[in-house]
Amino acid sequence: MTTGVRRRMGVEERKQQLIGVALELFSHRSPDDVSIDEIAAAAGISRPLVYHYFPGKQSLYEAALRRAADELAARFVEPPQGPLGPRLLRVMGRFFDFVDEHGPGFAALMRGGPAVGSSTTNAMIDEVRQAAYEQILAHLEVEKPSARLELVVRSWVSLAESTALLWLDGRRVPRAELELQLVHDFAALAAVSAAYDTEMAEILVRILADEPADGPFGELVARLAALVPGMPGVPDQRLR
Amino acid sequence: MTTGVRRRMGVEERKQQLIGVALELFSHRSPDDVSIDEIAAAAGISRPLVYHYFPGKQSLYEAALRRAADELAARFVEPPQGPLGPRLLRVMGRFFDFVDEHGPGFAALMRGGPAVGSSTTNAMIDEVRQAAYEQILAHLEVEKPSARLELVVRSWVSLAESTALLWLDGRRVPRAELELQLVHDFAALAAVSAAYDTEMAEILVRILADEPADGPFGELVARLAALVPGMPGVPDQRLR
Repeated sequence: MTTGVRRRMGVEERKQQLIGVALELFSHRSPDDVSIDEIAAAAGISRPLVYHYFPGKQSLYEAALRRAADELAARFVEPPQGPLGPRLLRVMGRFFDFVDEHGPGFAALMRGGPAVGSSTTNAMIDEVRQAAYEQILAHLEVEKPSARLELVVRSWVSLAESTALLWLDGRRVPRAELELQLVHDFAALAAVSAAYDTEMAEILVRILADEPADGPFGELVARLAALVPGMPGVPDQRLR
Repeated sequence: MTTGVRRRMGVEERKQQLIGVALELFSHRSPDDVSIDEIAAAAGISRPLVYHYFPGKQSLYEAALRRAADELAARFVEPPQGPLGPRLLRVMGRFFDFVDEHGPGFAALMRGGPAVGSSTTNAMIDEVRQAAYEQILAHLEVEKPSARLELVVRSWVSLAESTALLWLDGRRVPRAELELQLVHDFAALAAVSAAYDTEMAEILVRILADEPADGPFGELVARLAALVPGMPGVPDQRLR
């Protein structure tokens, strides 16, 4: 017999299947617009059976978000080899892949709202931000960052988030351009901060020494330098 | 008689008084931790009377947030005279004043959470962001921004938010430094984007032509230029 028989799944297997189905639905439409009935239908089980595994939509949403958060954090991991600019650019590529795959769900989550804003979901968002922050510090080879370095890294993480969210709203700028722009933005924010913070300045000098002239950082410096000659206020030591 | 007589307030006057009292409390502690009883006590009226004017804490919170949002948006308004860097720096000063005055409430609101995250509060946050965005475009004298310019301005607004939030968490970096840093960050993000967007490049050249050499932008350029000589990848035209 090959019809009418549905293989019975174990509890954990069924839960994981439901999480996968839910994540798929929550990724493509705002979680507010996804019903338990739809999730049940997509999983091929009854609505009461969904409730057997998850007491409500919020708990299933949080389980799906847990999986998505772990997946995103895993994408931040990059081998600590080679110059930093290309490393960061590869991570940005994987980050935008994620945003692309989970667009509407990502936007709904980050914008907050009735179905998505809770202390649990906010804690998961903060956890992913923390993972990004720690990855960057590891790549910078810094264990105890100064307050200014911490601020630069965390505010850049937030910039990456908001850039991705703005991109999702119409996708009017090619994502590859934004991935590179964010790498440039990191260098630019670090350069601004280096003016106030010797630790930041030392890190910047160390990073840039490893950069190839045709890498993302080298490209930025060349572009900035091309803008500089027409600008007022450039001291003469630039010409030394 | 000067004792035992409390002047009766009109309905609108009483509502405005309650909003003021609530805003003060919500500004200094997380709204989650402020009870209607406290608001009633601080306003010198009974708890049932508070409910007479506002059906619940959420509606009073939203009214307080409405006032705070209007107040913040008003601080963005700056006369369109003189170079742009100092204008932006003055606005940053008033923005950090606001953040300073409403610290815990601002942090709770921006981080989301049960008492503060609703579609109404999110809409108010977006409205203030939009006001900031429109002010900046007006100062840049741009009516129809390109997608890239829009992205730079909006992502910088988000950077200002996250920088202020990070500052509130321990206040380990002097706020005056961050106000100036954000002005520099604007120039830096604009410079990065100018590499991709001719409109952005034209605006940047126009802005910088008006800047005094000792203004915030001039200072940034000097600092970046001082970093440039040690960097690889700087083309020879820098020396022209």
